[in-house]
Amino acid sequence: MALIVQKYGGTSVGTAERIMAVAERVKRWRDQGNQVVVVVSAMSGETNRLIKLAQQIQQCPEPRELDVLMSTGEQVTIALLSMALQAQGCPARSYTGAQVHILTDSAHNKARIRDIDAARVRADLDAGRVVVVAGFQGIDAQGDITTLGRGGSDTSAVAIAAALKADECQIYTDVDGVYTTDPRVEPKARRLTRVTFEEMLEMASLGSKVLQIRAVEFAGKYKVPLRVLSSFEDGEGTLITFEENIVEDAQISGIAFSRDEAKLTVLGVPDEPGVAYQILGAIADANIEVDMIVQNIAAQEETTDFTFTVHRNEYDHAMEILKKTANTLGARQVLGDPKIVKISLVGVGMRSHAGIASRMFESLAKEGINIRMISTSEIKISVVVDEKYLELGVRTLHDAFGLEQAAAA
Amino acid sequence: MALIVQKYGGTSVGTAERIMAVAERVKRWRDQGNQVVVVVSAMSGETNRLIKLAQQIQQCPEPRELDVLMSTGEQVTIALLSMALQAQGCPARSYTGAQVHILTDSAHNKARIRDIDAARVRADLDAGRVVVVAGFQGIDAQGDITTLGRGGSDTSAVAIAAALKADECQIYTDVDGVYTTDPRVEPKARRLTRVTFEEMLEMASLGSKVLQIRAVEFAGKYKVPLRVLSSFEDGEGTLITFEENIVEDAQISGIAFSRDEAKLTVLGVPDEPGVAYQILGAIADANIEVDMIVQNIAAQEETTDFTFTVHRNEYDHAMEILKKTANTLGARQVLGDPKIVKISLVGVGMRSHAGIASRMFESLAKEGINIRMISTSEIKISVVVDEKYLELGVRTLHDAFGLEQAAAA
Repeated sequence: MALIVQKYGGTSVGTAERIMAVAERVKRWRDQGNQVVVVVSAMSGETNRLIKLAQQIQQCPEPRELDVLMSTGEQVTIALLSMALQAQGCPARSYTGAQVHILTDSAHNKARIRDIDAARVRADLDAGRVVVVAGFQGIDAQGDITTLGRGGSDTSAVAIAAALKADECQIYTDVDGVYTTDPRVEPKARRLTRVTFEEMLEMASLGSKVLQIRAVEFAGKYKVPLRVLSSFEDGEGTLITFEENIVEDAQISGIAFSRDEAKLTVLGVPDEPGVAYQILGAIADANIEVDMIVQNIAAQEETTDFTFTVHRNEYDHAMEILKKTANTLGARQVLGDPKIVKISLVGVGMRSHAGIASRMFESLAKEGINIRMISTSEIKISVVVDEKYLELGVRTLHDAFGLEQAAAA
Repeated sequence: MALIVQKYGGTSVGTAERIMAVAERVKRWRDQGNQVVVVVSAMSGETNRLIKLAQQIQQCPEPRELDVLMSTGEQVTIALLSMALQAQGCPARSYTGAQVHILTDSAHNKARIRDIDAARVRADLDAGRVVVVAGFQGIDAQGDITTLGRGGSDTSAVAIAAALKADECQIYTDVDGVYTTDPRVEPKARRLTRVTFEEMLEMASLGSKVLQIRAVEFAGKYKVPLRVLSSFEDGEGTLITFEENIVEDAQISGIAFSRDEAKLTVLGVPDEPGVAYQILGAIADANIEVDMIVQNIAAQEETTDFTFTVHRNEYDHAMEILKKTANTLGARQVLGDPKIVKISLVGVGMRSHAGIASRMFESLAKEGINIRMISTSEIKISVVVDEKYLELGVRTLHDAFGLEQAAAA
């Protein structure tokens, strides 16, 4: 007997019919002798309906009240799914985030989970019931309703799996697993049967939207085995595992990319300690998230050039701040480009294989793709290129590293 | 400075626009120096939408899960109203029933309030905030969400007013007060400026749907001054008061009526102790509510005739049970009529005035209305007549007791 936590997203529970289908699947797992906890999102469309309602009243609603409103979405789903399970003769009980004490901090709309009291869930499981929990929500220490932000249901599922020491946390989505890259960009993309947590983290943070990055971090931290599966077809999906280098031959697991990036450069700032802090500190103070950071020795002596990327929506704001800082620092020039993208090779295998980077740069060069920035980590090489080269770049690399073929396992 | 609890029903908060209008009214009360707690229902249509969703899944959903589902309706409204207040510069905070510890028993879908912890509400009021509370819902001792059943928002408002020792509990509805009778039946019906609790109880239980009967009972028990007002127009509404016989001249406050009644009679049962219990016990065991009960000496010696009324929907079921009991008791005959209505004169004034009953019977007789049953209490005389006489009966009595004129106060 295993303890399984399953998470179904908004599309999977989008209609009464689909909720019945989810109930059937849950019941099948339970009938095989497993204990099952189900975490659900709001029915697709519901979140937008609620936001629209709020905006008819106030353009920027207070975060606390927005959470009170939004959390009703999942509450509707837990009730309906419990009914669907009971209709199929499967004992079930629903709980809101507050009821199972998913304690979070008080950062409304983007709260982080601090603790879960699993006692009530465990008692129900032991009594033979399926437990249905509202994802995406919790309560803070004052008893106020919080939400984890969009996509937070994945995090809820993983956190509950960790608290219960579940054998597996299964994330059901509208795709059947993690792919070597986005199949909409490269039709030859292949589903991975396994991927390591580190790779998944890089993939998720780089815009492969299968799993929410915080959920993956959480799962890695608490060693929760995670599996991504399809709600609509049977299959084993992709297992996210702690093992490394499962297959020696697989140097690269996938190609992630991220659209909507923008690049800012400040040229000729004094090359002295504290400069990076002065430049990025001002940006951080404005709550703008910085992604890649590159610093070079400048052509001119005793000065340095400094480049970083932000989300395209933040470009104008970041530029405004940077210009002020540049002025203070006596920088020579400020440049920017809001139309760039990032493409990354990800794979734990690349640690032990030389020549990955050069093969990557060579393939891109052959297609005439100019690399604007480079950044590397142990298991990732990222390049920034002009927006127009995104598709070509992804397909070129997918081909160059033979990702359409499964590794000889 | 007064502490006011205001309750707005589903029609009053049915759209974003109406919610803004409610916020304006609430703010006006607060700006006049009052502390205001607002209790709201689900937006009109929302409850039916949720029930339809549930029924796509299960014809008779489990009461516990139905409560989880239904309670989202008010939760949406409290968030939106708080936003609307904040949008108008009025500090506000929303609470679900669980958050302000509206403790109920565990009778899902029809729970009764046991206790309210008003500490959190009081702290917010003292901090200058308007407090917005979800009506109709609470939690039981296990922390499960409960609902008070349809119309329960009135009861929530009164219970909160009682817990806070509020100066007045104002119930805003789509009518502007309590009338001498239903204006749709008697266009000359007049709004009462005051009515006693006892009268209101009789009016409510007899089908004047302005206030929920449990709310009136609660208000009477905890001595909460209650006022019924319109959400859509200004006016002083009707105050429900503890004073008796405010105006010596007003013998009758109003005429209540109840459609959809049915009458069952068993003739010639043995006239011995325990017979009434045997007849009504079987009906009660089937959860059928009995309204009027009349017992006469029968024509035949040592037997008695027994008549009672039930809701028309329960007629067939009650008849089936009664036939069995009649058989056991060796009764002579069982009769029934599912097409009767009840009309009642209500007024604390009638206690000290003889002749009310005879004037009532005389007026009805003059119009050829045959009385089928009579039942009286201290402040009420009810008659059962054929369904077709309802309108004529109400208008005749309204006229006979001069209810269109305000009492000479």
